Amino acid sequence: MFRVLSRASGSAARLGELVTPHGTIRTPAFVAVATRGTVKALGVDDLHALGVEVLIANTYHLALRPGGEAIAAHGGLHGFTGWQRPWLTDSGGFQVFSLGAGKVHGVGKIASIFPGEAPAKPTGASLVTLTEEGAHFRSVVDGSPVFFSPEEAIRLQRLLGADVILPLDECTSPFHDYGYTKAALERTHRWAERALVAFEKTRGLGPNPGQALWGIVQGGAFADLRRVSARTIAGMGFPGFAIGGSLGRSKDDMLRVIEWTVEELPEDRPRHLLGIGGVEDILAAVERGVDTFDCAAPTRLARNGVLLTFGEEGFRIAIKNARFARDDRPIEEGCDCPTCGRYSCAFLRHLVQTGELSFYRLATLHNVRFMVRLLARVRAALATGRPVSAALTDPFTDPSAQ
Amino acid sequence: MFRVLSRASGSAARLGELVTPHGTIRTPAFVAVATRGTVKALGVDDLHALGVEVLIANTYHLALRPGGEAIAAHGGLHGFTGWQRPWLTDSGGFQVFSLGAGKVHGVGKIASIFPGEAPAKPTGASLVTLTEEGAHFRSVVDGSPVFFSPEEAIRLQRLLGADVILPLDECTSPFHDYGYTKAALERTHRWAERALVAFEKTRGLGPNPGQALWGIVQGGAFADLRRVSARTIAGMGFPGFAIGGSLGRSKDDMLRVIEWTVEELPEDRPRHLLGIGGVEDILAAVERGVDTFDCAAPTRLARNGVLLTFGEEGFRIAIKNARFARDDRPIEEGCDCPTCGRYSCAFLRHLVQTGELSFYRLATLHNVRFMVRLLARVRAALATGRPVSAALTDPFTDPSAQ
Repeated sequence: MFRVLSRASGSAARLGELVTPHGTIRTPAFVAVATRGTVKALGVDDLHALGVEVLIANTYHLALRPGGEAIAAHGGLHGFTGWQRPWLTDSGGFQVFSLGAGKVHGVGKIASIFPGEAPAKPTGASLVTLTEEGAHFRSVVDGSPVFFSPEEAIRLQRLLGADVILPLDECTSPFHDYGYTKAALERTHRWAERALVAFEKTRGLGPNPGQALWGIVQGGAFADLRRVSARTIAGMGFPGFAIGGSLGRSKDDMLRVIEWTVEELPEDRPRHLLGIGGVEDILAAVERGVDTFDCAAPTRLARNGVLLTFGEEGFRIAIKNARFARDDRPIEEGCDCPTCGRYSCAFLRHLVQTGELSFYRLATLHNVRFMVRLLARVRAALATGRPVSAALTDPFTDPSAQ
Repeated sequence: MFRVLSRASGSAARLGELVTPHGTIRTPAFVAVATRGTVKALGVDDLHALGVEVLIANTYHLALRPGGEAIAAHGGLHGFTGWQRPWLTDSGGFQVFSLGAGKVHGVGKIASIFPGEAPAKPTGASLVTLTEEGAHFRSVVDGSPVFFSPEEAIRLQRLLGADVILPLDECTSPFHDYGYTKAALERTHRWAERALVAFEKTRGLGPNPGQALWGIVQGGAFADLRRVSARTIAGMGFPGFAIGGSLGRSKDDMLRVIEWTVEELPEDRPRHLLGIGGVEDILAAVERGVDTFDCAAPTRLARNGVLLTFGEEGFRIAIKNARFARDDRPIEEGCDCPTCGRYSCAFLRHLVQTGELSFYRLATLHNVRFMVRLLARVRAALATGRPVSAALTDPFTDPSAQ
């Protein structure tokens, strides 16, 4: 269940609460990425300490290893992973893109999420063939065939037991043309109908009877397709919505896609933006009415030595830089993360230079806490009637940020 | 300062306390290995939670990166790493072996520490040349020359500021003959004298004026050499002693080496056994009067998926084994480590199978806690007048184990 607590004046932003069978998520919220059931390099104890409220896992990867049945046998994701708070699962639709057109086109969902980040290079032939029936994958583990129909994606997600699950969709590429995107969209709508039927038919399967199936809006960066998709998916009665697929070739494209979509979605339902996590992107999307975000970038950047800070151009520093070799300060003065509380930039640089495993955790702790703080600042701004952008400038005083 | 609190009847074991400028270590104790300033995959917060009381770092590796001066500038190891409790540093003498004869002979300090563990394979030519003046290394980072004299090893350790430091020595190989071992030993004794002089001359250097310089006993697996070395080093007045070098070609050799050495050392001073951490080895060494141990095996095994348990043959399980795929139990029933408190064998196996970074930390947490518990059990047995071997069989009730 989703409650809007207050609305901003002058933007579509709203402060809310998403109530799930495993707890309440304060929105706007960042959903930490735990593709295979763990946030890379962190434990559940860490996530609690960071104030993380919700995780997203990936149905495709978990279906390969250890399998939906194995996870169900351990009480679903909540029991298996030890994260007893809210879970989302993506349907495998993103892998339709990332293992398919994403590889062939050598591109991400958008040209560049973080400034300076190089677009992905082509990594080979597609591992995906789509038919009306579903998505025929090759396993990234052993190359064996893996078939996801809309029904199978629901069955697997019933077994995983996340609190919010998604229908199988086709996430298209920024380089797909209008005709392809339209045809893909229409198939995705047919798959959404099948997912709803499968969702009803599988009531009672798996560990979490209170699961919610949200719809995914597609349509690439084409205004009419986005609007048609949002109206179509909204018309199916989903209790929440995800904005998926290609977001175009620029940040401006992305914001337009969000505007077109949100305008067609019901006001009283939550909206999730799939795979976006840049600081300015999040603020702009919140202003346009998005409630939740997931993105692997903060954790992936951490493992590459890129640490997020409010005080720097581009909100990031490269800790490998020689200027940190003798820097006794924490990553960011005033940051309340466990890493900044105890370690200097000089020590963190030493760890990354020597390839110490400890680095991955300490860096990830900081970046995830940065995202939690960012969204807490956004909520604090909304709660006090300030514009969303005040999240970057207001002194941070929200006592509930923890 | 070292205090013997009580002595076992029927063995040379003793319960004690080692007081350092950064806190007291209850002995017998396990010293966790933090070669480059961090226990691999763990943070300082983790170490506190595990009940670890003391760490050992390596002067050679830290001298290469980030350098003694850099660490001194951050308050020494205590300030730089965030571990504000007792530190030991090894002198670089072990690298004389591991980068020298250890590589050429393809052997460790002893044939096999843990049952079934393959001895190291020859890994190439020696990176060390020894002269009377000191040890001429090649850097493992970039191949550049690195010179450690006994004086330089002391100077560097003054800069690092560990609470217990060691003189440069030559750690010989089990395959060195009597003649070589004897000549090396005599040089090591001359180096120990030089280290003592250097230690006095450098008073005031570095962040920790309360450092203690312990002596290292060498002599391979030759009875007369070990006894001569122990008497010679003890005669120099060191406040504590480490048993270094080759421990022979078998566990029996190792135990004899310990017996010969301990018999010649003063009763009132602490004794550290360098680089040994097998369960039965520790118990046997405690019975022979050893107080502290360090060993990289528990953490290295963890990273390789080998988890220590009291309940299994050989005190270990391989979590990758298929039998754990559906095992809902913790690694060990009754283990109070953070990993066993939250995660099943099935989940840990999933993490190791999928190569998740989180695995390294969760496995290391368990294995380090195992070592802490083992030594706490040893102390509990000694405190209640039970034989050391009771550590493996008595119900574990020591409330101070944390």
